[in-house]
Amino acid sequence: MPSFKPLLVVAGVGKGGGTGAATARAFAKEGYSIALIARGADSLKSLEDELRASGVEATAFRSLPTNMSLYDPPFKRSVTDTQPSNTVSAQPSTTPHTGINGGFAFAKEVISEYKNNEIDNTDGLGKRGVLIFTGATASVRGNTTTSAFAAGKFALRALSQSLAKEFGKDNIHVSHAIVDGAIVTPQGREQFNNPPIYDSQDQSLTPEGISAAYVYLAKQPRSAWTWELDLRPAHEKW
Amino acid sequence: MPSFKPLLVVAGVGKGGGTGAATARAFAKEGYSIALIARGADSLKSLEDELRASGVEATAFRSLPTNMSLYDPPFKRSVTDTQPSNTVSAQPSTTPHTGINGGFAFAKEVISEYKNNEIDNTDGLGKRGVLIFTGATASVRGNTTTSAFAAGKFALRALSQSLAKEFGKDNIHVSHAIVDGAIVTPQGREQFNNPPIYDSQDQSLTPEGISAAYVYLAKQPRSAWTWELDLRPAHEKW
Amino acid sequence: MPSFKPLLVVAGVGKGGGTGAATARAFAKEGYSIALIARGADSLKSLEDELRASGVEATAFRSLPTNMSLYDPPFKRSVTDTQPSNTVSAQPSTTPHTGINGGFAFAKEVISEYKNNEIDNTDGLGKRGVLIFTGATASVRGNTTTSAFAAGKFALRALSQSLAKEFGKDNIHVSHAIVDGAIVTPQGREQFNNPPIYDSQDQSLTPEGISAAYVYLAKQPRSAWTWELDLRPAHEKW
Amino acid sequence: MPSFKPLLVVAGVGKGGGTGAATARAFAKEGYSIALIARGADSLKSLEDELRASGVEATAFRSLPTNMSLYDPPFKRSVTDTQPSNTVSAQPSTTPHTGINGGFAFAKEVISEYKNNEIDNTDGLGKRGVLIFTGATASVRGNTTTSAFAAGKFALRALSQSLAKEFGKDNIHVSHAIVDGAIVTPQGREQFNNPPIYDSQDQSLTPEGISAAYVYLAKQPRSAWTWELDLRPAHEKW
Repeated sequence: MPSFKPLLVVAGVGKGGGTGAATARAFAKEGYSIALIARGADSLKSLEDELRASGVEATAFRSLPTNMSLYDPPFKRSVTDTQPSNTVSAQPSTTPHTGINGGFAFAKEVISEYKNNEIDNTDGLGKRGVLIFTGATASVRGNTTTSAFAAGKFALRALSQSLAKEFGKDNIHVSHAIVDGAIVTPQGREQFNNPPIYDSQDQSLTPEGISAAYVYLAKQPRSAWTWELDLRPAHEKW
Repeated sequence: MPSFKPLLVVAGVGKGGGTGAATARAFAKEGYSIALIARGADSLKSLEDELRASGVEATAFRSLPTNMSLYDPPFKRSVTDTQPSNTVSAQPSTTPHTGINGGFAFAKEVISEYKNNEIDNTDGLGKRGVLIFTGATASVRGNTTTSAFAAGKFALRALSQSLAKEFGKDNIHVSHAIVDGAIVTPQGREQFNNPPIYDSQDQSLTPEGISAAYVYLAKQPRSAWTWELDLRPAHEKW
Repeated sequence: MPSFKPLLVVAGVGKGGGTGAATARAFAKEGYSIALIARGADSLKSLEDELRASGVEATAFRSLPTNMSLYDPPFKRSVTDTQPSNTVSAQPSTTPHTGINGGFAFAKEVISEYKNNEIDNTDGLGKRGVLIFTGATASVRGNTTTSAFAAGKFALRALSQSLAKEFGKDNIHVSHAIVDGAIVTPQGREQFNNPPIYDSQDQSLTPEGISAAYVYLAKQPRSAWTWELDLRPAHEKW
Repeated sequence: MPSFKPLLVVAGVGKGGGTGAATARAFAKEGYSIALIARGADSLKSLEDELRASGVEATAFRSLPTNMSLYDPPFKRSVTDTQPSNTVSAQPSTTPHTGINGGFAFAKEVISEYKNNEIDNTDGLGKRGVLIFTGATASVRGNTTTSAFAAGKFALRALSQSLAKEFGKDNIHVSHAIVDGAIVTPQGREQFNNPPIYDSQDQSLTPEGISAAYVYLAKQPRSAWTWELDLRPAHEKW
């Protein structure tokens, strides 16, 4: 462990049962402080309370902070962008700029901050920070009914690849995870009426499975960094 | 030739020496009427004059028309989006939404109109219309200094793929050309001080070479449509 | 037209109703002499007879000629490899080397010959010769039951890309067509009991649609060559 | 840990300083028995001795065993194919079948054996076995001078994707790692005269960095398996 306390900032925390929350819990176990960012309020509070109750230093923000007080801690290493990039639309009517703009703004803030960090040389890490984007099948394949969603996801994948190339030489590690399959979440259970595949981890992704991959990415040594990996259940058809 | 007069709408016409203008000239030779759309005014006027002088029905618009009078002709078949999607930025500061939003708005208008067209069965075409996007190397590879440009180009590629899948079954042909190399244009000659590669067609793309590909795409029969092709000079390194 | 008579060599001619035969007919109309290569004999003879009856200089070879008399004509410009690369296997038991070895051997012969050609500057072609590979969906996606077929098709795509880069600077044009969909052939009609999609050119590829694309590729000017394009019916789901 | 003792089979062990050897050491630390396969003999012996000296059950084989005694242990879980697939050739003269055939034969053996395994449910693994292919930049990009190498690497990538799809539903985990950069090995030091980048882990891949990724892949839970990831040094240009 480095002498400073690393910080995880999660952009896009849902109702506490999704990938963002699982990522917060997984990094908390690794000794990180946690900052949570989301548009909603209630779930943030409850996840913040849960983390604090287990002794984790955690703070929730309702949107991207403008005063940078978020970045007061002496060192921050890992950041994930799990924000759903935009809504799905079958018509080419919805422009995907909301998700893209959010991703760009977040990435800009984060990388600007990272540039001021010292390199963490623990265990060969060689990192000033990590920025992980959560992608989807639509990051690599447009399809009927996904024009706006795919455009946003393609754009964020391009952003992540460009940033990985541009800032890798500054020892900032940018990754992109293609999550390809149904993720088990409380909202999904409700929305889709508890589908049978949710009860089979061969057929659905758990937020914990995804967040374990994020912890792995954050720990990769400088000599072998991953920009992109895919994640899907064992039995997924693709 | 069909009984109606086909119309080409070119979105993004530069100073008359680029891909948009060459495409206008190439389709005019094929018997199309021409509508030109651009933000600038002078070049539009001069290209409009040139086309009219050679007997082509041509009209210039300074921006996307809102009253749809553009679409008065009884049938329109081919449309290209050659609009540069956005500016290049080395920093993740510029969001790519301008080019994306323009592309989405244009595609939405065009496809809505196409849906009202009858299918043109001339020569096995089987088309209600054609929509061609001009991509670039950055459509498939993010790179240092191209985060915003690549994000926009990836997004438009996703859009074109989604639309090709969604509206192919309605006999609307959507294509995406990856233009990979330097295009010889008057502006380029000026901006880059007439670089030597511009004098070699083995090393640079001519607007006429690109527009010939667009004419070919527009003529492909329904049984063998291309969504994507790349275009580069014979000696290009890639 | 150049002063020499261009030659098309088709490697992999089936029973006269497929892509190879359609390509032979399409290039014959463009003034090419035709050389046919296949493992079978009867269909070669009948296609040879048909072409000769219409005044085309055509010769059939039962395998790759070893004495190079095939290459006696003073100039040869276009070659297609439509040879099915190998058999499909659901088990990882069949190695794909037959198709790959054939593709490599053919490409080596062809490119060695092309290097001795003068550049044809007609219409901005700038070519010593053209080599077109026929790919498939399996060229870009492995899938269950296609391990050997996809391996062979991926390999030939890699070969075509490498050759396009290596010999483009020698003005040899190498292309790769991804044929994505069912091709209407006499054998297919028999094998699949004349499936309904064969009667709809919105749902199936005609050999003529494919060969028209090959003629287009052969005619592309040096400033805008295509390495890869996809071809599929208007209504294809992909 | 499961009640059986897992086995790692490494196909393609070089002189003891490369990826294969590092993978053997990394999995030995995780409690695996080790089987080594290579064409050479001396290095196998020395690595076998080294592993045994540290208490690891290790056996070396000089080629693919035909009598299957290799597979006597009650359970085997992880296998890597780090065999260099073939030689590089600037001319399209060398056919890539050696590497491909080896990969196919190895995969066939391994998967046949895995099908008889019970599923290991430790820690949500859900695996009968793991098969990891070592790819390279040439797995996704053909280039000048790499026609044969790229063809072989593309083919093995296709094989790995097909197998991942075909046997994922049988809980066999197939992965493909794209190793993109120079790997530090004793042979490389000798061959390239100890290049400066070898002394910077920002600029070169260590076998240990790669093998850590393989251990991670072998440990992924069934709900979030990776088929493909890339691995490159922090400062790599790509």
